[in-house]
Amino acid sequence: MNWLLFWRDELDGDGVVSLRPGDRRGRHLREVLDALPGSFLRAGLVNGPTGRAEVLALEPELRLRFRPDTGIHGKSGPEIHLLLALPRPQILRKVLFLAPQLGIHRILLSRAARVEKSYFHSPLLSAGEWRRQLLLGMEQAGSTRLPGLLIFERFRPLVEDRLAELLPDGCLRLLPQPGALQGPETLPRPLPETVCLAVGPEGGWVPFELQRLEAAGFRALALGERILRVETAVCALCAQLLLLARLDAGPKRTNEDCEEP
Amino acid sequence: MNWLLFWRDELDGDGVVSLRPGDRRGRHLREVLDALPGSFLRAGLVNGPTGRAEVLALEPELRLRFRPDTGIHGKSGPEIHLLLALPRPQILRKVLFLAPQLGIHRILLSRAARVEKSYFHSPLLSAGEWRRQLLLGMEQAGSTRLPGLLIFERFRPLVEDRLAELLPDGCLRLLPQPGALQGPETLPRPLPETVCLAVGPEGGWVPFELQRLEAAGFRALALGERILRVETAVCALCAQLLLLARLDAGPKRTNEDCEEP
Repeated sequence: MNWLLFWRDELDGDGVVSLRPGDRRGRHLREVLDALPGSFLRAGLVNGPTGRAEVLALEPELRLRFRPDTGIHGKSGPEIHLLLALPRPQILRKVLFLAPQLGIHRILLSRAARVEKSYFHSPLLSAGEWRRQLLLGMEQAGSTRLPGLLIFERFRPLVEDRLAELLPDGCLRLLPQPGALQGPETLPRPLPETVCLAVGPEGGWVPFELQRLEAAGFRALALGERILRVETAVCALCAQLLLLARLDAGPKRTNEDCEEP
Repeated sequence: MNWLLFWRDELDGDGVVSLRPGDRRGRHLREVLDALPGSFLRAGLVNGPTGRAEVLALEPELRLRFRPDTGIHGKSGPEIHLLLALPRPQILRKVLFLAPQLGIHRILLSRAARVEKSYFHSPLLSAGEWRRQLLLGMEQAGSTRLPGLLIFERFRPLVEDRLAELLPDGCLRLLPQPGALQGPETLPRPLPETVCLAVGPEGGWVPFELQRLEAAGFRALALGERILRVETAVCALCAQLLLLARLDAGPKRTNEDCEEP
């Protein structure tokens, strides 16, 4: 946990939040960070500003005051939508934790022929545990933006009907495929502002799915010679898209430019 | 396991390998892949050629014949050396599994002020379990190259004395740092053939270490606005280096060009 995140409705009118005794964040502050009254921590509001939190009291309940700062996060990289064939829970957990680190905007979890139906009933999805994994990733990344997550138990209606409204016009639709001929070095430049990656299940999309994705405008993209696990492919692709966007922006674009415009 | 890997000394003169009953690969063939006599699997020799393995018999012992193929793997990306402050075993395990997927050439595990000494005595290092993790990553990636691994229990002798002989002349030495101003979009192009990434511990390198690394020619590199976990930073950086190399090689370089030169 690099950052402490609060929900807006946890703050009272003075910007003070009181964490109940069993709260995971409170335990981390006491047991890992050894926080004392008066110490400051990097903090943020979910889908809101970043800032700092001052520890006001440890007893009887842990109280902190959140103060937003004036930090402006530069837009970094394209808005990435991840159309992901629902992986087994162990892998999905990793992807959810990664998503905020990679700046993924929204995840569309889809059924596919090689997806086991039982995955849709894992506690990760059914009990909202997915949200906690995303929050852990945001705390790691220092990002206050909660990626969206939508679940589709049928592939065809998603790809044929819903994608048109879910993805903005001009969105570059990419289909990472082991056998593809063209890698990310061949993508159109400057990169469009929105990119959707359609990442298949272990074993890949079946021919019918590939055909529907291609009909929906997805173009095959080579990932290189090596076979990457789902979470590795997602990480590698997002990092490469970010780099292309930074190359497009020119050599003078640095973190400093972003933060002090 | 996407590929079946053998050590050269497991093959007899006819290219036949016999797996003892408890062998992990044999269990996978029987229990996960439902292999039958006559079936073929993608296979390779550790630090040798790729090819195919034909299942000759399942009983009384599992026997396969390996036949190397003529596949030529194109050189993809720079030779990456990873100078890594020894992370806790759980993270190291992930990095070892990732390394072959990312084409990492060699890993130099180093002590650092923020590295717990006890990590050097984990079974992962002391019992050679590290090699198994690398092999699992190679089986995933379909790579026959076993990344090298060297362990240094002292930071300063490594950086001040050993690096000069371990890294080839002209190696680009990079120090990914949260506060750095210049990102990978500012790297020299074409990218040198060898790159060394010095990835610090959780909490980062201490000032003395940063100073020694800079004196040894490492230049700071920004990773972007978000804070990445060690394994995510390694994955993102390697993917970006690979992309830069492919951009340098020009837009016509595709997988097809690599495999059928």
